[in-house]
Amino acid sequence: MIELVAFDADDTLWHNEDLYAQTQANFARLLTRYGTPEESLQRLDATELRNLPYFGYGIKSFMLSMVETAVAVSGGQVSGEEIQQVLDLGKTMLSATVRLMDEAELTVTKLAETYPLMIITKGDLHDQEAKIARSGLAGYFKYIEIVSDKTIASYAALLAKYRVAASRFVMIGNSLRSDILPVAELGGTAVYIPYHLTWAHEVVSATSTGPQRYFELEHLGQLPELIERLNQPTV
Amino acid sequence: MIELVAFDADDTLWHNEDLYAQTQANFARLLTRYGTPEESLQRLDATELRNLPYFGYGIKSFMLSMVETAVAVSGGQVSGEEIQQVLDLGKTMLSATVRLMDEAELTVTKLAETYPLMIITKGDLHDQEAKIARSGLAGYFKYIEIVSDKTIASYAALLAKYRVAASRFVMIGNSLRSDILPVAELGGTAVYIPYHLTWAHEVVSATSTGPQRYFELEHLGQLPELIERLNQPTV
Repeated sequence: MIELVAFDADDTLWHNEDLYAQTQANFARLLTRYGTPEESLQRLDATELRNLPYFGYGIKSFMLSMVETAVAVSGGQVSGEEIQQVLDLGKTMLSATVRLMDEAELTVTKLAETYPLMIITKGDLHDQEAKIARSGLAGYFKYIEIVSDKTIASYAALLAKYRVAASRFVMIGNSLRSDILPVAELGGTAVYIPYHLTWAHEVVSATSTGPQRYFELEHLGQLPELIERLNQPTV
Repeated sequence: MIELVAFDADDTLWHNEDLYAQTQANFARLLTRYGTPEESLQRLDATELRNLPYFGYGIKSFMLSMVETAVAVSGGQVSGEEIQQVLDLGKTMLSATVRLMDEAELTVTKLAETYPLMIITKGDLHDQEAKIARSGLAGYFKYIEIVSDKTIASYAALLAKYRVAASRFVMIGNSLRSDILPVAELGGTAVYIPYHLTWAHEVVSATSTGPQRYFELEHLGQLPELIERLNQPTV
């Protein structure tokens, strides 16, 4: 029997990656007098990856990497005004309206009647809490866990903390690497709902992971039926 | 009987505020051709406070506010190289050696033999986790909780999650506002160990809070004896 149903948040409950994509486009446009959009975005990507051990995930990390990239791409010629524009791009992200995925509210409303729901999301504590508040969905979730990374070890620690066996745990998310494979590995039920955009560093190649059993759905609206079926003693 | 002993981290288990003070001095020195140190630091303080709802606490927030302040203080004249120097000041903070408070290790070693220990710290998830890892103390703590703010509500939620009554909970910290008053208010035992520097926004005026009962110690070395005394049935 299922005791806990957990959701990833970004690109699972609400749109997120498109906000980054849009900001990257604006950032590249801001720097056109210093480099082509391709060059600027390639430099930004490399800077983000290099800064990851210092900064971790999240919009503030992204902002700091944008500032650093603007300095580098311009050979130090970037103006104070342009730096401020870069900061403003980030602040716009931090206060952007949270756009829920189709059927997100209906699905969590339905499931919350039967199961304790949890959000397990990776990234910046302050920003994630603010988004959960702005989403209007906070009331449906009994538990909220914001973690710095989603690994087998971090899922195992969460399950131990909440005293839930992996076999009674369902995780829904859009990232094979973060939401699906570690949970499947632990013996939990993982439900993969792909998003049309995936951050490059989140892509897992099929060969590197070996075969893992998980469910795949097209959209959140299909979730309640799957969960109900999983919760039948015959499955 | 005491069931859970929790510690604040920054300026309770290890030095933190002096790292900010030192970085602020370096930041002001970097901007001397645009303004006096007093002006620059006053602007930085105002920028941090204004950005708090966007950024929350932590070094990355501080870095972004330093960049914004450098643009403003210089009237947009700041160079790309100077912006990079500001970013480097922040990166130095993010990888700085964690300097433990006197007797911190001895005290947690001793207490961990008898009590489950927890860290409850506020701020940036990635940075706090990295500091806990660098501190060498992680092994003594059964639980680690990084929260975006320390309020009566957030302590009550933590105690509910761990199923610990406030009367069986001890919190040790250097901030009256964040570590002491909310815990005393809930009926827990609060142990105040002041640090010689306190961030301006952490100071609570005596009149605004009314009388609250808490213990005050000079240093961590005095803690095991107090806890032992508190855990006697006669107290």
